[in-house]
Amino acid sequence: MNLILLDPNSTLSHDQFALTVRQQTHISKVIKAKQGDVLRVGVLNGKIGEGIYQPPSEGRVGYIHSVNLFLSVPQPLPMILVMALPRPNMLKRTLQNITAMGVKELYLIHSAKVEKSYWQSPVLQTESIQQCLLEGLEQAKDTVMPTWSLIPRFRPFVEDQLPALLEGKVGLLAHPYLAKRCPIDVQKPCVLALGPEGGWNEFEVGKWHEAGMESVQLGERILKVETVVPVLLSRLYPA
Amino acid sequence: MNLILLDPNSTLSHDQFALTVRQQTHISKVIKAKQGDVLRVGVLNGKIGEGIYQPPSEGRVGYIHSVNLFLSVPQPLPMILVMALPRPNMLKRTLQNITAMGVKELYLIHSAKVEKSYWQSPVLQTESIQQCLLEGLEQAKDTVMPTWSLIPRFRPFVEDQLPALLEGKVGLLAHPYLAKRCPIDVQKPCVLALGPEGGWNEFEVGKWHEAGMESVQLGERILKVETVVPVLLSRLYPA
Repeated sequence: MNLILLDPNSTLSHDQFALTVRQQTHISKVIKAKQGDVLRVGVLNGKIGEGIYQPPSEGRVGYIHSVNLFLSVPQPLPMILVMALPRPNMLKRTLQNITAMGVKELYLIHSAKVEKSYWQSPVLQTESIQQCLLEGLEQAKDTVMPTWSLIPRFRPFVEDQLPALLEGKVGLLAHPYLAKRCPIDVQKPCVLALGPEGGWNEFEVGKWHEAGMESVQLGERILKVETVVPVLLSRLYPA
Repeated sequence: MNLILLDPNSTLSHDQFALTVRQQTHISKVIKAKQGDVLRVGVLNGKIGEGIYQPPSEGRVGYIHSVNLFLSVPQPLPMILVMALPRPNMLKRTLQNITAMGVKELYLIHSAKVEKSYWQSPVLQTESIQQCLLEGLEQAKDTVMPTWSLIPRFRPFVEDQLPALLEGKVGLLAHPYLAKRCPIDVQKPCVLALGPEGGWNEFEVGKWHEAGMESVQLGERILKVETVVPVLLSRLYPA
């Protein structure tokens, strides 16, 4: 947690932001802050700065007051990420990493090689996803919550929603077969579609291409989804 | 496991390679191969090709025979990675990822911000490290085991060993302060030194610089070690 993210809906009074249990634990156990210490804070979807720590006292939760916001958030990545729903044990880390790297628009989509059971994972509950995204923001000292959607049906998304998303953007399909080398430092907004373990099937690749996406590959090595994500994002948009 | 890696020290007879318990389990449960099936195999530190599967039978382990090796391994990364010993819970994944991405020479080094207890982690036992590296090779369809060393003392390494390692290479120190932007597609061999959570301390940075390493940074976002590794490697050597 490199940033205490304050929720504008949790103000105790003007300029006093209540801390969550997680934040309180982190401040007490890791930062070991005392009353009056100045902490690095950000306001959700707002700016970054400092605030003064007030520990919990009888009947009152800990809070931050005298917040002074003077820093902008890091640049977002100018891209939309469409990702085949990863295996639940990779999902949390992947959501955190995506957010830490600055993705602001995410679609988790079904694909023939995504096991149906993945869609039942408790990680997909709204609160759980929001928690992963929050942890990604805290890691990267960002405040801007990504938007996200679950897309359990492939075809209507690619046929009906994708064309509007692609407008004015480069469409890149991570697909290692018969593909050109993935561009480096693309410097344009993109829609990036990342397949499941085992890749998109032929029908799906056809549909992506029809919609205007171009296949790109990353070389001979097969990498795990959790590795491919930072590899691709840092290649397309090196910070 | 995208490749069955055969150990030349485990031949049952000429051209018959015994399978390990892990490989046998994967072949039976995931690949669900039957007697006579042709499987993608590689020989440790050798080439890649195919072999024929013989399931275990009474008193005899499963094995691969009639091995035909006709493919080269993927290109290694022309770099030496020196990394502050990561937190044990990140170490396994990091070792796998590093190997999957093609690092062939690795040093895990002490730094002021590495907790002493990390050096007691069971993951650092030779067998455990080798196992992580093996899993990285299996993931990336590579066969060439990286060499690795544990460096529990920072100073003698940087003063005495590093100059020889740096000969003919670019020396890059991942260090976000007062640093130039990390190069993209460096196209030269390098030594890359990656700090612990919280970074190298001032003394250490001074020592790295004295040895000829240059600080480079990756932008404002603070990323976890497990994310920084693929970000840096793919940026320096995009496949």
